[in-house]
Amino acid sequence: MISFASDNWAGASERVMACLAQANAGPAPAYGNDPWTRRARTALAALFEREVTAFFVATGSAANSLALAAYSRPGGVVLTHRDSHIARDEAGAPLQFAPQLIDTLDGPGGRIDPAALAARLADYRPANVHNGRPTVLSLTNVTEAGQCYGAQEVAALAAMAKAQGVAVHMDGARFFNALAHLGVSAADLTWRAGVDAVSLGLTKVGGWACEIVVLFDDALAEDTAYRHKQAAMLFSKNRLAAAQACALLEDGHALDLATHANAMAAKLAARLAAAGAPAAYPSQSNEIFVWLRPQMAERLRAAEITFAPWADMRSAHAPTAPADLPGAGLHRFVASFRTTDEEIDAVARTLGADD
Amino acid sequence: MISFASDNWAGASERVMACLAQANAGPAPAYGNDPWTRRARTALAALFEREVTAFFVATGSAANSLALAAYSRPGGVVLTHRDSHIARDEAGAPLQFAPQLIDTLDGPGGRIDPAALAARLADYRPANVHNGRPTVLSLTNVTEAGQCYGAQEVAALAAMAKAQGVAVHMDGARFFNALAHLGVSAADLTWRAGVDAVSLGLTKVGGWACEIVVLFDDALAEDTAYRHKQAAMLFSKNRLAAAQACALLEDGHALDLATHANAMAAKLAARLAAAGAPAAYPSQSNEIFVWLRPQMAERLRAAEITFAPWADMRSAHAPTAPADLPGAGLHRFVASFRTTDEEIDAVARTLGADD
Amino acid sequence: MISFASDNWAGASERVMACLAQANAGPAPAYGNDPWTRRARTALAALFEREVTAFFVATGSAANSLALAAYSRPGGVVLTHRDSHIARDEAGAPLQFAPQLIDTLDGPGGRIDPAALAARLADYRPANVHNGRPTVLSLTNVTEAGQCYGAQEVAALAAMAKAQGVAVHMDGARFFNALAHLGVSAADLTWRAGVDAVSLGLTKVGGWACEIVVLFDDALAEDTAYRHKQAAMLFSKNRLAAAQACALLEDGHALDLATHANAMAAKLAARLAAAGAPAAYPSQSNEIFVWLRPQMAERLRAAEITFAPWADMRSAHAPTAPADLPGAGLHRFVASFRTTDEEIDAVARTLGADD
Amino acid sequence: MISFASDNWAGASERVMACLAQANAGPAPAYGNDPWTRRARTALAALFEREVTAFFVATGSAANSLALAAYSRPGGVVLTHRDSHIARDEAGAPLQFAPQLIDTLDGPGGRIDPAALAARLADYRPANVHNGRPTVLSLTNVTEAGQCYGAQEVAALAAMAKAQGVAVHMDGARFFNALAHLGVSAADLTWRAGVDAVSLGLTKVGGWACEIVVLFDDALAEDTAYRHKQAAMLFSKNRLAAAQACALLEDGHALDLATHANAMAAKLAARLAAAGAPAAYPSQSNEIFVWLRPQMAERLRAAEITFAPWADMRSAHAPTAPADLPGAGLHRFVASFRTTDEEIDAVARTLGADD
Repeated sequence: MISFASDNWAGASERVMACLAQANAGPAPAYGNDPWTRRARTALAALFEREVTAFFVATGSAANSLALAAYSRPGGVVLTHRDSHIARDEAGAPLQFAPQLIDTLDGPGGRIDPAALAARLADYRPANVHNGRPTVLSLTNVTEAGQCYGAQEVAALAAMAKAQGVAVHMDGARFFNALAHLGVSAADLTWRAGVDAVSLGLTKVGGWACEIVVLFDDALAEDTAYRHKQAAMLFSKNRLAAAQACALLEDGHALDLATHANAMAAKLAARLAAAGAPAAYPSQSNEIFVWLRPQMAERLRAAEITFAPWADMRSAHAPTAPADLPGAGLHRFVASFRTTDEEIDAVARTLGADD
Repeated sequence: MISFASDNWAGASERVMACLAQANAGPAPAYGNDPWTRRARTALAALFEREVTAFFVATGSAANSLALAAYSRPGGVVLTHRDSHIARDEAGAPLQFAPQLIDTLDGPGGRIDPAALAARLADYRPANVHNGRPTVLSLTNVTEAGQCYGAQEVAALAAMAKAQGVAVHMDGARFFNALAHLGVSAADLTWRAGVDAVSLGLTKVGGWACEIVVLFDDALAEDTAYRHKQAAMLFSKNRLAAAQACALLEDGHALDLATHANAMAAKLAARLAAAGAPAAYPSQSNEIFVWLRPQMAERLRAAEITFAPWADMRSAHAPTAPADLPGAGLHRFVASFRTTDEEIDAVARTLGADD
Repeated sequence: MISFASDNWAGASERVMACLAQANAGPAPAYGNDPWTRRARTALAALFEREVTAFFVATGSAANSLALAAYSRPGGVVLTHRDSHIARDEAGAPLQFAPQLIDTLDGPGGRIDPAALAARLADYRPANVHNGRPTVLSLTNVTEAGQCYGAQEVAALAAMAKAQGVAVHMDGARFFNALAHLGVSAADLTWRAGVDAVSLGLTKVGGWACEIVVLFDDALAEDTAYRHKQAAMLFSKNRLAAAQACALLEDGHALDLATHANAMAAKLAARLAAAGAPAAYPSQSNEIFVWLRPQMAERLRAAEITFAPWADMRSAHAPTAPADLPGAGLHRFVASFRTTDEEIDAVARTLGADD
Repeated sequence: MISFASDNWAGASERVMACLAQANAGPAPAYGNDPWTRRARTALAALFEREVTAFFVATGSAANSLALAAYSRPGGVVLTHRDSHIARDEAGAPLQFAPQLIDTLDGPGGRIDPAALAARLADYRPANVHNGRPTVLSLTNVTEAGQCYGAQEVAALAAMAKAQGVAVHMDGARFFNALAHLGVSAADLTWRAGVDAVSLGLTKVGGWACEIVVLFDDALAEDTAYRHKQAAMLFSKNRLAAAQACALLEDGHALDLATHANAMAAKLAARLAAAGAPAAYPSQSNEIFVWLRPQMAERLRAAEITFAPWADMRSAHAPTAPADLPGAGLHRFVASFRTTDEEIDAVARTLGADD
């Protein structure tokens, strides 16, 4: 099997495995009071160029739910893109952790349209108990369409939110892919741009099961620690998670893995385009969305190459098939830290586009 | 450091680490649709001598909360021991996943007194909306006092519950320690005794982060799968958890580790008693509760031997210090799969009870 | 003050007041075990031409939330119109009572477009835990735009929902206004058309504070009774609510009041149109939506005539101002059982359209 | 029927009915923006001798749940008497509104024993996420045993709570009965004694359906307003509730009604004692708990006199039957504003104790 189905089909990087083995030696206090957790916190501070408040969790939904809950208030409303993970792919987990409405906005490429945000914020003015109140703006970066918000785009949206007392969350399930594409620092893409909380994804980039809720406001630390425990997310042997974080955050390992995955995706996109399967969006991450004619999809499947049909965009800005490819369907291919040139060659070869 | 602080201070067993490394080879579908998860399900079926419905989660609180939620109903009440983990040590996690009252019962050694259960069940008859209704009886086995319910004790309590339509849950954070002590099969201690759901603990016995909610009623599978996702507990790279389960469930590895830990605890108890620190309960698991005079506790601490002062029992049956040890405090020592004879010797030597 | 601001600005009808006074004589058992509650249940059975399961609550949000919760399931999604009360005006109350996503659909006049429903239902096929699953389709009748779904329209939408195992709820805050407009029976508009639960509004039509959750599936009675209590909605002196229901449901009183309010609204719409303020929708209830030039609105306000500016529709089908009324804004006028010809004359006179 | 079953079996006082009729005249803004609500707020300020933040709700459970939610925090624990309404009679409503553990304490007469409170508070020190943290101490005054905490008792318990950052709530379902018995002011019994929130009960004392959440900290007003709406408790025609409050709070009407009910209960207790049915507690409110031999209970029932068998106290301090009344059972009799001398005479006559 050659997998472009999802980056969560890959396992963990060798460095992660090695770090886990090291962390396994000897006893260590439970619940995060161990040296590996301290070391991971140090690495987080280096990444963000400041002290942060961090909570380790096992899933991306948990990270998003806890981050949103940290900023939840009675009658709260989360503003997010219509195709975002929290709106579409978490079975309502954010509501389970705090009862809050999810109010969705449109915009191309999975990015929230600034004008749509401005209008929606205005909708909630003046505040009244009936409508509830916007409490968090959640931006997904890399978006569900594999696209990136640049630091200035984030800052512009965040400024609108902040002007109305709305906190800003970044769903960074593929955060390092965004950093790799944009060439900006983690600090510039988050707190310096007005982001208050990040779901920092380490699983897809090369970990096993480690996502970190990063808060830039230490005043929320105490309440969120109780939320973390009450949500049943506090690992007893937290050094397991911390060791993954150490491996990935130290020496730029996660960024290296993301850079590789992005490059592989771009290469794959180019090869697919050459084979008559153009992309719906520019390559901005390790995810590409490609128009495939049914026969092409079948040929790939027959070769045990996995990928995902993608009929799943609800946004008014969902892409439409090119005129010269009638009947083509949108398909997602995701590269991972493990993707090889050989695998890409195999795709191209299967489509008959290769020498 | 010599750790008797908790079995969650130990890392993972060598077999677990080896299995993780094997599971890391190649791509595999996410969310549990992988060969390792299938293999783990097979091992579960072998353990319980029947098909079961299983959900993998990262923490014991998650397992308990999901298992209780699976049986929750509006106005539901969970009956449990006053010192149980769900009542005292999960910051209300079970309420977070389903709004249910936790109504506590007394009994010696962390075991619910059958007469107290009978009286409490009668309290809820006839049913009325004001009081709510008992929905689940939760038994912790090994109990918080390190004691075990035998299969017949479980069956007797379960029969009372069942007669009133109340489901039975077993918090098995140290389930294999109970099996090892009792010498019964997993089937006999659970579904054959009337248990409907088990929080099967693999973390403390020698895993990294793997607890499994085992349900014996497949009719709950669909709803619980949605609860599992909505509670943000569904691992994307589930093979991480499944590989731990394979390592621990196959070839009786978990039972072997538990047998070792129990034996070490019993040996430690004997040595401590010989040194003038008698146990409050018989040795029935890998946890022992011992009366230590302050000087003894200090001497151990000075030797970097960790353990836990235990002023934490609320039950009317909490033990009292022996008459000949005025001023002695109760302390918990927990052995793990890693505990060695040398470590026990060191404890005894530190207390001056050894040659 | 002449009030067209909302029908909840009116008090209670004389019959309601008289019935309350009668119900006040002597003692009666609490929590609904009283003769007035029995009498109200009989009246409900007559209205719906069958036995129903009924719960009395104090607010419309409570009725909607309890009705939706009755059909909630883990990972559940409520499908509703984008401008519906549950999506926009209840501050997330339905989520508070059961953690469920609210997924919104478009359609003109506040009615869900059948094609949009079909597409959205298809979106959730095949079922998967990530997306959650549609559990309830909620139809508001009278809609937020003052329009009605006819019995056949309800039946068509309900059939689509039912085919996918989705229950159907009707938010009937102005249910009697719909009945009055449509000239159909309560049974034909609800269970005979496939509706499973109704929020039966008695407050706006002429009660004080009485809304009734009507369920047509008695199998939900027990669980919903516990939900009702756990949601803190069970009146101790329930005969207060029941007396209102008796007054309104017996002898067609509510229908008479609604018929009057509808007629007054239609008359008002005609007079406003004559005065240069055309309606955005046909008159189908006691609510009309009218285009007013700013000066007209000012003149009415100066005359202490209340009504509501309505910049509040998000649906893609929100009406736009007529070309010949540039700058005109949409405004809502609501007639009640108390609205008089004199009040309508006063509006017309104020706008200078009357002799 | 002569009713001593509960004070919620009585209807509303004549003054309440008259006030309702007055409030029914003419239109008034919805959702509490009306003159009656303003007038009720003024009356509340007079009662408490200060400005307060107030929310009107329909049930006592709603008042308690909202008041506790206002002070809830993640991982929060509510400390309350084991026999309190929130622990035993609200089907878990407080958990539904905010996920919080209810941790129960003993004490005679339904009053929390100060030593038990001190010990339990110490149990939660030092704070840790596992145990959760006490957030609210809830005192029921009048207690479930018909007894009162005096202002100094309240102050002593409140001081302990406050020293640990724990807020203090008073469940005042029979608050005016406590005021009438104690002869203290509302201010002295609440905020001057350290109480932060009161569930002010107007229903049992002579209203229809009006309970008021009174908060003494205005900083919670905004969040609680959203909670109030999100809990679906905000009346649209709030003047209904407000008119009840006006009637009961102005001119000391509620206190007069409570004084009457208390006197009737005391008289009934004396007559019952004379008839051989002694009380288990001194008369401190409108509730008395009396030992009745089975034949006595039967005779009363035969005479259509209602009262409630009371096998319902779990506290370690539950009263036991007098030695000279073997087989006697505890029964609750509750007097209301409507209780007459004739009704009491009828009880005594039925028991053959009257001339």
